[in-house]
Amino acid sequence: MELTLGQYELIANAFSFTIATMGAATLFFWLGRSQVAPAYKTALTITGLVTFIAAYHYVRIGQSWDAAFDVVDGGVQATAVPFNDAYRYVDWLLTVPLLLVELILVMNLPRRETVSKGVRLGGLAALMIVLGYPGEISDGLGASFLWGALSMIPFLWIVYELFVGLKDSIAKQPSDVRGLVDTARWVTVLAWAFYPVVYFAGIFFGLGGGVSETVVQVGYTVADIVAKAGFGILIYMIAVRKSQHDLGAQPAAATA
Amino acid sequence: MELTLGQYELIANAFSFTIATMGAATLFFWLGRSQVAPAYKTALTITGLVTFIAAYHYVRIGQSWDAAFDVVDGGVQATAVPFNDAYRYVDWLLTVPLLLVELILVMNLPRRETVSKGVRLGGLAALMIVLGYPGEISDGLGASFLWGALSMIPFLWIVYELFVGLKDSIAKQPSDVRGLVDTARWVTVLAWAFYPVVYFAGIFFGLGGGVSETVVQVGYTVADIVAKAGFGILIYMIAVRKSQHDLGAQPAAATA
Repeated sequence: MELTLGQYELIANAFSFTIATMGAATLFFWLGRSQVAPAYKTALTITGLVTFIAAYHYVRIGQSWDAAFDVVDGGVQATAVPFNDAYRYVDWLLTVPLLLVELILVMNLPRRETVSKGVRLGGLAALMIVLGYPGEISDGLGASFLWGALSMIPFLWIVYELFVGLKDSIAKQPSDVRGLVDTARWVTVLAWAFYPVVYFAGIFFGLGGGVSETVVQVGYTVADIVAKAGFGILIYMIAVRKSQHDLGAQPAAATA
Repeated sequence: MELTLGQYELIANAFSFTIATMGAATLFFWLGRSQVAPAYKTALTITGLVTFIAAYHYVRIGQSWDAAFDVVDGGVQATAVPFNDAYRYVDWLLTVPLLLVELILVMNLPRRETVSKGVRLGGLAALMIVLGYPGEISDGLGASFLWGALSMIPFLWIVYELFVGLKDSIAKQPSDVRGLVDTARWVTVLAWAFYPVVYFAGIFFGLGGGVSETVVQVGYTVADIVAKAGFGILIYMIAVRKSQHDLGAQPAAATA
């Protein structure tokens, strides 16, 4: 891969920025657990787990990036060790199902519905990631398109579930929370739709080139921050508002 | 050992995936301690200890894997430092007895029974691991089979204790928890039975070969995730449900 020093450094700095953001977000969500009602504590636990797992993987991604290139005479040379792009997919396999579980948990549905919706949406999310990976590592344009397209099927099913399957459940949320849940749903769809845009943009700019690599690495990084930390803040706001609402009669307990 | 780059990377990624999973599981269990009744807090402490110890060992296993091989010209070459497989057995010696202690603790039996069952099952589990290790490191097929078979004796005794010895205790659990305890028991038996399958599959595919190594490393990794993190989630669910049940008369305290 041909990278300029500027591209190499921009990508390394993007990784470091993400470690700081994900680490800080994790602590924010877990410290916030003590400020919400018991019913929403698990939602915040999971929200923090997602950013914790992402922070771990960005540390590994950053180490792999360092090991994959040497700076020589003001230029960048690839070493014998290839950059390990699989960390991203390993991360998504764990975090993407958990993101949907966060949303289900903060809605505080009946136990049976929580389990059935969590399993269905989590399973579809895992399937989406598993189908995307062969396309990401393939060298051929045809294979990249084929797996990318297959991966879109569970994605579209998730979109359908979020907008049609959750319709009744969202209608039952308190009125001052409904808007936030709706935003969280849109952030999920739009932030997630950004990943295939990055995926296909990488193909468009020419696989293996420096511009393509920069677009893919920085693009996925921005998408991860929005989909995990940004989405998490919405979950946190929903949990806080619903806590105030649920425990309206016991203000002392609500803020314990 | 002859490994392709793909096999080497698959195993390295499986180790990293496990570090993330075990680390996240640990924090999930320990954060969950605040959501269960006092009688179940120790069970969740131990559940998190098991995944914590596993996360530590997978960090060491990953480092040993990196040190044991060099990537040269797109291929993989063994270095002078052998891969240390003993970390797995050190891990199991600590965690496998604790897994049975988790199950005993979450059942909340009378104190005398908790101690006697914990010591007996924990001791058998430790014996099972100690007997398996000489077989894992031996080069001879006969020795591998002999120690593997000897290790099955305490395993079968544990299965007997779980299904016959715990029968009365499980019958006394609340009705909405009995199914979960039964599932936990089955996960223990089936996930643990998967270890000897991996052990003998390694022998079957030819000790020291790349395919054998991949089957053994990925197989043990999957088994560890199911037996420790997956099993832990069942323990967590049992603890939460029993807390709601035990403290049914004091809902405010139950969810504190």
